[in-house]
Amino acid sequence: MEEEKEKKVLTILHGAVIITMDKDKRVFKNGAIVIEQDRIKAIDQSRSILSQFSHLALHILDLTGHILLPGLINTHVHTSQQLARGIADDVDLMTWLHDRIWPYESNMNEHDSYLSTLLCGIELIHSGVTCFAEAGGQHVSGMARAVELLGLRACLAQSTMDYGHGLPSSWATRTTHDCLQSQKDNYEKFHNTSQGRIRVWFGIRQIMNSTERLLLETRDAARQLKTGIHMHVAEIPYENQLVMDVHKVNHGTVTYLDKIDFLQSNLLAAHSVWIDNNEISLLSRAEVKVSHCPAAAMRMLGFSPVREMLDADVCVSLGTDGAPSNNRMSIVDEMYLASLINKGREVYANGTTDPTALPAETILKMATVNGAKSVLWDDELGSLEVGKKVVIGSGYADIVVVNPSSWTMVPIHDCISSIVYCMRTENVVSVMCNGVWIMKNKKIINVDEEEVILKAKQASVELLKRAGITIPTRMNVI
Amino acid sequence: MEEEKEKKVLTILHGAVIITMDKDKRVFKNGAIVIEQDRIKAIDQSRSILSQFSHLALHILDLTGHILLPGLINTHVHTSQQLARGIADDVDLMTWLHDRIWPYESNMNEHDSYLSTLLCGIELIHSGVTCFAEAGGQHVSGMARAVELLGLRACLAQSTMDYGHGLPSSWATRTTHDCLQSQKDNYEKFHNTSQGRIRVWFGIRQIMNSTERLLLETRDAARQLKTGIHMHVAEIPYENQLVMDVHKVNHGTVTYLDKIDFLQSNLLAAHSVWIDNNEISLLSRAEVKVSHCPAAAMRMLGFSPVREMLDADVCVSLGTDGAPSNNRMSIVDEMYLASLINKGREVYANGTTDPTALPAETILKMATVNGAKSVLWDDELGSLEVGKKVVIGSGYADIVVVNPSSWTMVPIHDCISSIVYCMRTENVVSVMCNGVWIMKNKKIINVDEEEVILKAKQASVELLKRAGITIPTRMNVI
Repeated sequence: MEEEKEKKVLTILHGAVIITMDKDKRVFKNGAIVIEQDRIKAIDQSRSILSQFSHLALHILDLTGHILLPGLINTHVHTSQQLARGIADDVDLMTWLHDRIWPYESNMNEHDSYLSTLLCGIELIHSGVTCFAEAGGQHVSGMARAVELLGLRACLAQSTMDYGHGLPSSWATRTTHDCLQSQKDNYEKFHNTSQGRIRVWFGIRQIMNSTERLLLETRDAARQLKTGIHMHVAEIPYENQLVMDVHKVNHGTVTYLDKIDFLQSNLLAAHSVWIDNNEISLLSRAEVKVSHCPAAAMRMLGFSPVREMLDADVCVSLGTDGAPSNNRMSIVDEMYLASLINKGREVYANGTTDPTALPAETILKMATVNGAKSVLWDDELGSLEVGKKVVIGSGYADIVVVNPSSWTMVPIHDCISSIVYCMRTENVVSVMCNGVWIMKNKKIINVDEEEVILKAKQASVELLKRAGITIPTRMNVI
Repeated sequence: MEEEKEKKVLTILHGAVIITMDKDKRVFKNGAIVIEQDRIKAIDQSRSILSQFSHLALHILDLTGHILLPGLINTHVHTSQQLARGIADDVDLMTWLHDRIWPYESNMNEHDSYLSTLLCGIELIHSGVTCFAEAGGQHVSGMARAVELLGLRACLAQSTMDYGHGLPSSWATRTTHDCLQSQKDNYEKFHNTSQGRIRVWFGIRQIMNSTERLLLETRDAARQLKTGIHMHVAEIPYENQLVMDVHKVNHGTVTYLDKIDFLQSNLLAAHSVWIDNNEISLLSRAEVKVSHCPAAAMRMLGFSPVREMLDADVCVSLGTDGAPSNNRMSIVDEMYLASLINKGREVYANGTTDPTALPAETILKMATVNGAKSVLWDDELGSLEVGKKVVIGSGYADIVVVNPSSWTMVPIHDCISSIVYCMRTENVVSVMCNGVWIMKNKKIINVDEEEVILKAKQASVELLKRAGITIPTRMNVI
């Protein structure tokens, strides 16, 4: 009797439509998942799972009427910028950078970073994200504390700059050595912590703020530590022009990065907007991953050749970018945008829209399978299936539960397109990461949402004051 | 005593940030509105309103921490297409029209139309819309029943086509006379009904399905009845080419409509994507109103020259288009999109994005003040102020209550941009139309949401069966 009791450790989710995103593109109309600790132990038709595993299950959850998805992966987000939401709307790029973002970021302390990542993490979870790639802020320890607490999975990175005009004084004194050493220290302290949910990557802010030495030593250090590099690449025409002038290459950043042998499969290149066909080939050949951020692209950068990259087998995933570049940190909205913008982009590229470009199944793949590849974690993430990693035996239980029975989504004639084009964050009801519920019935489990919001608001006001940032009013406030 | 009691008829909303959208662009930090029947009787600082009107108020609602906006206006929506959400995603334009939308619409019955408008109306209310312009479906009586019940305000129109290849058989037999007569009948029956909330407009589907006689007689009938005309204009390059070939004009639809003296101030031209600078001048001179639908433009049509139209003083407002062209019937999302897409469009028009294009205050104006002008109702709608119409004495009480204290919007440094770029439908908590709450604390007041959803799902399945529409599956459903 005692023995039998001890055996009851599994969790079963059943009765749901399950979009597995596995290689066979299986969608169970009435499927079930068995979870053992942090892993998926089995996935099949509900009837079969219930008859095999019910007697071993501690929790059996009937999710009839719901849709299950793999946890969504946000491959480019500045969690440290969440407190800066709304501080740089509708301003030109130089005002954005020099008068708002740099003063904001260079005046952040570790606790600001913690609160900012907490607030951003809450938004990520509400939008079905279980794993994200941090684009690079200042205080990795603050981010790590927040990720640990929220129960999320993340690849964290510090933003490094060892060169460039107009940098805030506290940053301008950092040597190449400082930049590398602090990242190695972060790796030492935080890599593979929080039950393995946190990994530490190297960060390069952008080519215009990096010496060649920083690039090459980062490449070598990341190779040695078997981790990734997150970098903003080919964001604006001015960047490419500068690279051509300084480095004597015939196109922009990607051509130069190829020339110095920086392009490799552990590089996550955010944006990659201003690239030509040859550079697409270079990215493809080197197996570089690209994070496409549709909202930020439209607002600040331009049209990324996403269709062309996908056609050339470049792994393109989705990112939100940071709150001052987008305002909404929602992969749910980015899926919708990615489809719309890339259909519309065909006018720019070829004269007329193409409503068949980037269909829903491609978008969903970008947010899951390609996301997992982009964060170098596809052996265990990105789809709902058993045995993703042969050594360990199964994929992580990172799962999103969607309730589609609302005015936002009905009627549903096409489950996949409905998820991609109709679903809103309102439909994301529960989220599991690493086998643990981190949101259930729309309630964030591990932190008090209202308390975080209150503290974040306060910290944000104080930070702006410290940084001397003032936002002009748009109307006649009385 | 009895006398005093009878005097208590006013409603006061106080303690809120009020974005009035009036001519002085006033934003009250702590404002109050007095509502008498269907009108705004007073608007001012909370303290002043409370001291003047408290003793006359039947309801006093403390909205501290909330933001009040004028009801948003959706100037192009096919409420009859709500049951068709998801039936035409990721297909080319001809498949979209001939194999999906025409079979769907031509097989609708009056009850389908009623349910479809109910379902769509629920989504409109949840996204803060109090007034919409119907783009034209088949059964105005069905739409009118739904609008009457929901408590919304609407300009309804029938979709008319008296010409064109490949029309469904039930439509192909309609003469020009039939088209006009049924619209006049609708006007007779439904115009100015439901406490004045419903107006009936004339509808022209598009130039390729209209004879010149239909256009001219519609123009004259609308002029005579002092009402508006809703028409799809310059949607695709093919349309312009056809017009040039057939009517021997040197550019597209707008040039031709000018030639036949069809352009007038009561014309609401949806989309207006493929127009040149001369045509922008023609629209401006004739005071034609344009409904910009960002999502549908990206998905199907192309980039509308919105900035250029606004610069030329064309009144441009926002529309969602129908569910098969967009999937989300949310003006909240369209505000976000309009900003992003038109900033990005500058790459297409001028080589680089312009993050300052269409700033938040312009977008909000498009969704309110310009919306009201577009539906020819700006004497009483579009802003929160007293005395919009001198004869009657005040503007209608169409009000949206937003709760911004959530992870979607905090921190708020810029109230206007926060509403436009961060707000999601989740933040819209209550909506008043014509002085009556039609949603309160996220609950739709006049219909049972779940019941409508259930019936709409059922009707949708039956309608697709009747119309012989099948949707291919995208994945391996088992």
